[in-house]
Amino acid sequence: MSSNYNIVSLIRKKRDGFHLSSDEISYLIKAYLSGEIEDYQVSAFLMASFLNGLNTIESSALTESMLHSGQIVDLSHIPGIKVDKHSTGGVGDKLSLILAPIVASAGVPVPMISGRGLGHTGGTLDKLGSIPGFSTDMDLSRYKQIIEKHQLVLAGQTAEIAPADKKLYALRDVTATVEYIPFIASSIMSKKLAEGIDALVLDVKYGNGAFMKTQEQAIELAETLVGIGEQFKKKTIAFITNMNQPIGTKIGNWLEVEESIDCLKGAGPDDTNQLSHLLAGAMIYLGGKADSIEKGIERSKLQVENGEAFSKWKDIVEEQGGDVSYIDQPTKFVYPSFEFELKSLNSGYIQKIDTYGVGMAAVELGAGRKVITDTIDGGAGIVLRKKIGDKIEEGETILKAYTNKPSVIEEVTEQLYQAFSIGDEKPEEQPLVTHICDSNGTRAFEL
Amino acid sequence: MSSNYNIVSLIRKKRDGFHLSSDEISYLIKAYLSGEIEDYQVSAFLMASFLNGLNTIESSALTESMLHSGQIVDLSHIPGIKVDKHSTGGVGDKLSLILAPIVASAGVPVPMISGRGLGHTGGTLDKLGSIPGFSTDMDLSRYKQIIEKHQLVLAGQTAEIAPADKKLYALRDVTATVEYIPFIASSIMSKKLAEGIDALVLDVKYGNGAFMKTQEQAIELAETLVGIGEQFKKKTIAFITNMNQPIGTKIGNWLEVEESIDCLKGAGPDDTNQLSHLLAGAMIYLGGKADSIEKGIERSKLQVENGEAFSKWKDIVEEQGGDVSYIDQPTKFVYPSFEFELKSLNSGYIQKIDTYGVGMAAVELGAGRKVITDTIDGGAGIVLRKKIGDKIEEGETILKAYTNKPSVIEEVTEQLYQAFSIGDEKPEEQPLVTHICDSNGTRAFEL
Repeated sequence: MSSNYNIVSLIRKKRDGFHLSSDEISYLIKAYLSGEIEDYQVSAFLMASFLNGLNTIESSALTESMLHSGQIVDLSHIPGIKVDKHSTGGVGDKLSLILAPIVASAGVPVPMISGRGLGHTGGTLDKLGSIPGFSTDMDLSRYKQIIEKHQLVLAGQTAEIAPADKKLYALRDVTATVEYIPFIASSIMSKKLAEGIDALVLDVKYGNGAFMKTQEQAIELAETLVGIGEQFKKKTIAFITNMNQPIGTKIGNWLEVEESIDCLKGAGPDDTNQLSHLLAGAMIYLGGKADSIEKGIERSKLQVENGEAFSKWKDIVEEQGGDVSYIDQPTKFVYPSFEFELKSLNSGYIQKIDTYGVGMAAVELGAGRKVITDTIDGGAGIVLRKKIGDKIEEGETILKAYTNKPSVIEEVTEQLYQAFSIGDEKPEEQPLVTHICDSNGTRAFEL
Repeated sequence: MSSNYNIVSLIRKKRDGFHLSSDEISYLIKAYLSGEIEDYQVSAFLMASFLNGLNTIESSALTESMLHSGQIVDLSHIPGIKVDKHSTGGVGDKLSLILAPIVASAGVPVPMISGRGLGHTGGTLDKLGSIPGFSTDMDLSRYKQIIEKHQLVLAGQTAEIAPADKKLYALRDVTATVEYIPFIASSIMSKKLAEGIDALVLDVKYGNGAFMKTQEQAIELAETLVGIGEQFKKKTIAFITNMNQPIGTKIGNWLEVEESIDCLKGAGPDDTNQLSHLLAGAMIYLGGKADSIEKGIERSKLQVENGEAFSKWKDIVEEQGGDVSYIDQPTKFVYPSFEFELKSLNSGYIQKIDTYGVGMAAVELGAGRKVITDTIDGGAGIVLRKKIGDKIEEGETILKAYTNKPSVIEEVTEQLYQAFSIGDEKPEEQPLVTHICDSNGTRAFEL
C-alpha cells in the first residue's frame, strides 16, 4: 500500500484544504511508525490538519490507525458488558478510584487502563501508586485473570497499546499541535478502544482547571469522542462537567486515595459523591444492570450503602499487591515532613479559585510532574478547607499543604494566595454538570 | 538571546494567527542553523506561516536572518552602482547571458551569482558550464578581482552564501511548504543581497512555464520582492513577464549559449532581444548610466550594435577559463549523437504550448535535473521551429531535439506532441511584459 502514496502530496492536499481518505490516513500512520516518513513531515501534516481541519472520516481513520498500531485486548470471553470511564483531566479528580469499585461491585466488569499525570492534572496511575505495594504493571494474561476474578482491573498503559499515539503525542507536544480536538479525541479513543471495552462513559471537563477552557469547546470534544465511539460500535455517554474549582477537598496522590476511601464509606465531600454516582450510574446503565442513568445512580448509592463497593476496593487492592491495612487505616500513611497553612488575608467569600494555579502548586510541592521524567512524592499535596461560596474570616485557614521540599514553600505560598479571590459578595452557585452527550445528541443535564 | 525564547511558544503564536517580532524570527533561524531547534519544529512553524501568513516585518526579518547566516560580499571599494538581475525561472531563459555583458560593457558593474537548474527550469550556472573550460568556482578574492577588472563576474553560489536558506529550502521541499510567496521572496532576496549589489532588476514570470501560474500571483511575488529590496535600501525594479511559451527558440544549455551569442551579435529571436534590452535597460538606468529605462534600452541596443557587449562577453569567457573559440565559432561544439524532429500531425496555427511540458521534455533529453544529484548533458535540448501564432502545415517540423539517450526518444516524442495545441484559428498575440513594479507601486507596462 505504501508505494501508492507520496507523503509530500498528502501534506499538500491537507495544506490546500482537501480531505484525506481513510487509506491515506492509514498509510501515513503506518509509514510514520515504520520510519518510512519523517518527524518533520508528520509535524507539517499535523499543523496543516490543525489549521485546516480534519473531518469525521479522517478523525475515525486516525483513531483506527492508532488503535491498530498496537495490541487490542480481547475480553469477549468474559461475560457481561465491559464498561470504562475516561476523564479529560482535572485537579483533585479521584473519581476513577471511587466509581471503579462501585460499578464492578454492581456486576459490571470494568477493565481500566490509566496513564500517569503530567502538568497540573493528576493521573490515576500515580494515585494508585501511592498505596504501599500496589502494582499496575502486568502482562495481558494477568490483566485478563484479574478482571475475570474481580470484575475489575486497574492497569497501567503499556508500550503495546497504541504505540502510534505515543509517538504522535510526543511530536505534538514539541510542535504546538496538542490542543486540537480531533487529535485529542483520537488519542483518547485509540487507547480506550484497545482495552477490550464494550461501552464508555466520558467526563469532559471545562473551566480554568481543565484543558477545555469553555463549555463550547468541551461540548465539541464530547461530540467528537461520542462520534468516534459510535463509529466503533461502542455505546458512549459523555457528561460536560465543571472544573472551575478542584473536585472535593484533597489534591495529591495519597490524599486523593484517602478522600476516595471516605466516599466509598459513604462520607466524603458532596461534589465528589455526586459526580461519582452520576458517572458510576451511567456505567451501570450502559453495563445493562439498570434501566436508566437515574436507576444506575440509585444502584451506585446502594453499592456504597451496603458496603459492597468498599469491599470490592479492598479486594482489588489486595489482588494487585497493595497493603490493605492502609485502606482500613489511612492515617498509617507516613505524611511528608513539612506542612503549612494558608491563612486568609481578609474576610469575605471565596469567589473564584484559579484551579490551574492550585494544580501547579501541588506539582511544585511534589505531587506531580512538570516533565515526564520527574519523580512523584505520593504524600505531597493540598487539603482545601474552603471552596467557592464558602465564608471566610481574616486569619482563617484556606488550605493546608504537605511537602518534603521546604525550599518551595515560600514561592508556593505566594502562588496559592494568588489562586484564591476573596470578595464581599457570595458568588452564584455553579452547576457540577451541565450537559449530557450521546448518540441522541447533546442536551442540558441537571444533577 | 536564545534563552529568552521557547520554540513551542513561537510555533503556537504563529499557529494562533499572531505575528512574530524580528528578534523572534532571528532567534528561530539562528537556533535552527545551530541545531538547537529541530527540523520537525521548524516544519510545523513553516506550515503555520504558510497557512496563517507572514507580514512584511516577518518576511524582512526572515530575509535578514538568512542573509546574515552566511558571508555577505562587500564590494563598496569598487566604483559604480553594482546591479544584478534575477529571474524567477522559466524555460529557455538565457537572458542573463545576454544582458550581463551588455550592462557591464555600458559601465555598470554586474556581480552575478547564479544557481543550478532543477525541474523544468534551467539554471544560468549550467548554461555557463556548457562552455568548454568555463569555471564559475572561485573564492572571494578572485570574485572581487574579476569584477574589478571586467565590471562583470559570473560565479556559482557557494555554501558560505545564506546557508540558512539552503537548510530551510531543503526542509520546505519535503514538507509541502515551497509555494508560499514570502518564503520564495526571502529565499531569493537573501541570496541576492549577499552578492554585494546596490540595485536589482527582477524578472517575475507568470504562465504555464513559470512557478507563478497567474499574473496576480506574479504581481504579489514582485511586490514582496520589491518591498524587501526597499527595506534593505536597494533600488529594485520588477517586471511581470509572460512565460506561456519558451523564451526564444532554443532550450538546453549549450543551445541557449548559442542563442545568446546570436543576440549579442544583433541577431537572435525578437522576444529574446526585446526582453534582454528591457532588463538590461533597467539595469543601466539603476546603475546610473541612463536617465530612464527607455534611455537605458537605447543604450543597451547601442552596446550590441557597437560590438562592445559581444567583446565583453568574450573577455569574461576568457577570464573565467572558457575556450573563446567556441564563442567565435559555436558550431565547433560536439552535438549529441541523436537528433529527431517532431512533425506536425495536422495543419493550422500553434495555439498553445505547454511550456512546463516542453521544459520537462528537455530534462528527459538530458538538459536538466529531476533531482539535485542528476548530471547534465550540456548539448541536449530542443530547438523550436514554430511558436505560438505560427502557421504550420501537416508534416512540417515543429521542433528538433538533441539527446545522447536514445531510450527516451519515444516517450519524449509523445510528451512533446501533447505539449503543442494546433487549431484553425490564429490565436491572439500575448504581450511579453505586462507590468512594472517598483517603489512607486505596480502599473501596466508596454514594451
